[in-house]
Amino acid sequence: MPVKLVQATTSAYQYPLLIKQLLLTPLVIAPEQEITYQGRLRYNYRELRARIGRLASGLAGLGVEAGQTVAVMDWDSHRYLECFFAVPMMGAVLQTVNVRFNPEQILYTLNHAEADVLLVNSEFLPVLASIAGRLETVKTFVLLSDDEAAAAGEMPVTVAAEYEALLASASADFEFADFDENAQATTFYTTGTTGQPKGVYFSHRQLVLHALGCAAALGGAHANGRLHREDVYMPMTPMFHVHAWGFPYIATMLGLKQVYPGRYQPDVLCRLIAEEGVTFSHCVPTILHLVLGHPHAKELDLSNWKLIIGGSAMPEAMAIAAHQRGIDLFTGYGMSETCPVLTLAHLKFDDMKLSAEEQAVLRAKTGLPLPLVDLRIVDGEMQDVAHDGKASGEVVVRSPWLTQGYLKAPVESEELWAGGYLHTSDIGNINAAGYLKVTDRIKDVIKVGGEWTSSLQLEDIIAKHEAVQEVAVVGTPDAKWGERPLALVLLKPEHVGKLSEHALRNFAAQAIDASGCSRYGVLLQVSFVKRLLKTSVGKMNKRDMRADPQALRD
Amino acid sequence: MPVKLVQATTSAYQYPLLIKQLLLTPLVIAPEQEITYQGRLRYNYRELRARIGRLASGLAGLGVEAGQTVAVMDWDSHRYLECFFAVPMMGAVLQTVNVRFNPEQILYTLNHAEADVLLVNSEFLPVLASIAGRLETVKTFVLLSDDEAAAAGEMPVTVAAEYEALLASASADFEFADFDENAQATTFYTTGTTGQPKGVYFSHRQLVLHALGCAAALGGAHANGRLHREDVYMPMTPMFHVHAWGFPYIATMLGLKQVYPGRYQPDVLCRLIAEEGVTFSHCVPTILHLVLGHPHAKELDLSNWKLIIGGSAMPEAMAIAAHQRGIDLFTGYGMSETCPVLTLAHLKFDDMKLSAEEQAVLRAKTGLPLPLVDLRIVDGEMQDVAHDGKASGEVVVRSPWLTQGYLKAPVESEELWAGGYLHTSDIGNINAAGYLKVTDRIKDVIKVGGEWTSSLQLEDIIAKHEAVQEVAVVGTPDAKWGERPLALVLLKPEHVGKLSEHALRNFAAQAIDASGCSRYGVLLQVSFVKRLLKTSVGKMNKRDMRADPQALRD
Repeated sequence: MPVKLVQATTSAYQYPLLIKQLLLTPLVIAPEQEITYQGRLRYNYRELRARIGRLASGLAGLGVEAGQTVAVMDWDSHRYLECFFAVPMMGAVLQTVNVRFNPEQILYTLNHAEADVLLVNSEFLPVLASIAGRLETVKTFVLLSDDEAAAAGEMPVTVAAEYEALLASASADFEFADFDENAQATTFYTTGTTGQPKGVYFSHRQLVLHALGCAAALGGAHANGRLHREDVYMPMTPMFHVHAWGFPYIATMLGLKQVYPGRYQPDVLCRLIAEEGVTFSHCVPTILHLVLGHPHAKELDLSNWKLIIGGSAMPEAMAIAAHQRGIDLFTGYGMSETCPVLTLAHLKFDDMKLSAEEQAVLRAKTGLPLPLVDLRIVDGEMQDVAHDGKASGEVVVRSPWLTQGYLKAPVESEELWAGGYLHTSDIGNINAAGYLKVTDRIKDVIKVGGEWTSSLQLEDIIAKHEAVQEVAVVGTPDAKWGERPLALVLLKPEHVGKLSEHALRNFAAQAIDASGCSRYGVLLQVSFVKRLLKTSVGKMNKRDMRADPQALRD
Repeated sequence: MPVKLVQATTSAYQYPLLIKQLLLTPLVIAPEQEITYQGRLRYNYRELRARIGRLASGLAGLGVEAGQTVAVMDWDSHRYLECFFAVPMMGAVLQTVNVRFNPEQILYTLNHAEADVLLVNSEFLPVLASIAGRLETVKTFVLLSDDEAAAAGEMPVTVAAEYEALLASASADFEFADFDENAQATTFYTTGTTGQPKGVYFSHRQLVLHALGCAAALGGAHANGRLHREDVYMPMTPMFHVHAWGFPYIATMLGLKQVYPGRYQPDVLCRLIAEEGVTFSHCVPTILHLVLGHPHAKELDLSNWKLIIGGSAMPEAMAIAAHQRGIDLFTGYGMSETCPVLTLAHLKFDDMKLSAEEQAVLRAKTGLPLPLVDLRIVDGEMQDVAHDGKASGEVVVRSPWLTQGYLKAPVESEELWAGGYLHTSDIGNINAAGYLKVTDRIKDVIKVGGEWTSSLQLEDIIAKHEAVQEVAVVGTPDAKWGERPLALVLLKPEHVGKLSEHALRNFAAQAIDASGCSRYGVLLQVSFVKRLLKTSVGKMNKRDMRADPQALRD
């Protein structure tokens, strides 16, 4: 398309979106603002900037160049924050290694990403010892440690430098050049249910736009601004996982006080919340459960705490409990592939007058799409379904901050981006107010007459019948409908022989009509079985049951 | 610089920053939200989107193609909002014509921008009649009117279509394609003190980033979020001027209720504030003065009104008066060349506990730079001055949303961007808290020993002496200091002969030491004169006085 672009006489106006530019404003408006590691180390943004320069100079001295990959294994620390900036600002790629992976997975990801340098916390030296001989590309190791004694032991590799010594000997005056905003800045690996971890990756431009988009939504979409420069930020999802949801970048851009807690220990988290005045965090439900369940949490005043819950569905009971403690708890939705934030569950003024129970329903929804996020619910032909809070389909998305694909995995990348949208493999609906509700993973839905039908919803409905002990709903091939839902039902012993499959089907059909379930749910068939197959960890093994449902009747 | 860019197997992930994408979120989260014109016409975002499609189809039917320029002459209206989106979304350039210009200037800007199409409100037909014969490129005219009768009169040009009829006959299903985000989206003209108006221009990418940056700052920088989706927006700086500071784009992106007032009449503005519940606006001090001074304003509850003041310095007295009415009044800083917003005067929680007088000082400062805004105060060698609230220099800036230059004016463009930063020609300082204070225009400062010295500050100091009737401070060439300030002083008749130049200089020097003025101010020389030269509008004619100060003594 022809466009009327005026040729400027100078290219001085060009302004690539680079991570280094997130540091511009805080150094003017908050140079004295604090960053603390566990409350025992503390410095200001001016010092942060100097240490970022020193780290870059130090790494350059070790031979790190633009285009290389620098991997980090650490808990959440000020050091990690420094790496978040210094490594991409040099033009290198930051690989955030998932330290919860087993050693073989860690080895795989370091080799697959072709990491050149590894910064490793002394706590992980045993892991490193078990894989060091098989690292194919890492040649340089830098040791991170909270504790000099721990770092003085025998090393499984030749350590090129200790982190603090490296910084102390290097100049703060590293010149961070401008370069292409599409340069890769970070990479990390995500696990599926099968196979090796898959690498996703983000550019400078994407991380900057994600920071702006989140800040715009947190200020602009909720009735009250939810994130402002007087907030105190502490991550509670790890920095190795989707850059702690990008919030270290956002917090820095806004000049917030930042608190890094190291490894997530409930007593330490409780202490930091109290002593440092934490007001803004994000975590998965499990971590919040751990924190609120800790004895120290009982005396904490949590009424200034704003907390994004993500990673898995938030139980409404948790939202109610949090509400009673005064916490402003709300859901965020996204995944590793999406940088991650796509939606946030913002409330309106009137919503905030609702009871805890009523608010919980809204707070547990997945939320409203951020600006620029093109979030759709589509059927199998990529057609939009109605925004009526009932019609469901796959969540597909475009936004300026999605991974381009999986690292060195062209087939999976093409699948991920089929039809020009990133496929989340999540099933959900959107209501008239724009709230996304994610209901299922795609593997848990059955495509009946071309429409997604939730097996989990059907299971919920059938499980409510007093005769039912356990139920698994699977899809079975059907000439007319493509697939039909089949409920494999284990009856309570005392009900065996007293209820017909037909009667249970009718019970379900009536409940389906009254529920938000797909109308095709009524095509449900019921089969009473003698056993259900489960996996080694006790989950329903639907794959095997679907393969031969008849066998379960014997 | 080599960068490790992974080649994706698909380019589906590419997401150019285009104006059309600002519409994505509101259509999901606020499809029923209202947009009203003067309270007498009202529709929702779904209808806005349909009308944008119709306008694009209608314009395409008139021959408008990507790359062409569509000029608009209208007061602030829903039609203008539709043009803000439809024209750039087609790949065409929207020229917002300053209807306050005189007809010759309007003619100049339409010819200079090579406008192809003109959408003109029937109110401006007399202007059009006076220039129609000399329009060099405009071939197609579309008539806008609030009033069918007014539009039925004799036309000075052949009208291709009436706006509402055009929309009514066109399809809402215009397919807005993706294209290069650097495509030019808008252009408009700004006046200097001399010469013809100069054209500035902005790309899709720049307008989208400006919207995100403003939203991030309005939510994230103030103690409380200052702009959220339950706000009701009404512009009070015109849409023809820097796109009403970009707020129609921002308000749309966030899904706000929007109120367009037409021409700014204080009674209409007061009525709309009350009837439509306006909570967010922006204006120059003069307009606020007009509104607050109107009889209808006395009964208005303005305690929910947030108002950005810009365009010229906000008097502290105005901030105090606004505070007493409960208005959250704060300064924004920028100019036509900067899209415009660079800084906003956000307060902290503790600041908001201060007295009205103390807050006024902060609210009247020019504010804190937005995220990504690289705002510097530099001396003549482009070296940063200290952020101590005293050292002053020129404000220079980089950000992702600055004009690339002046349209078809290579020399002025190069001057604007000298040294890789956009030169604002404003003089100011930054304090330790990051607040910018703009003190002078560059033509009002004197460069002494390489340091900017404010002539206005020196004039204020000297004017405090009881003997002084009028004073003008100009710079005179000096071998050692480059320039030295020279005070041309007209004494009150009764003091003539009773005060020496030397005594007044010493009085000034002492006051300079105690003030925030440059230390080089003490190099001030004093010359008693018999007259001061003024321009035709009564301003000091410093240019002529500087040329021959000696002549003023005779």
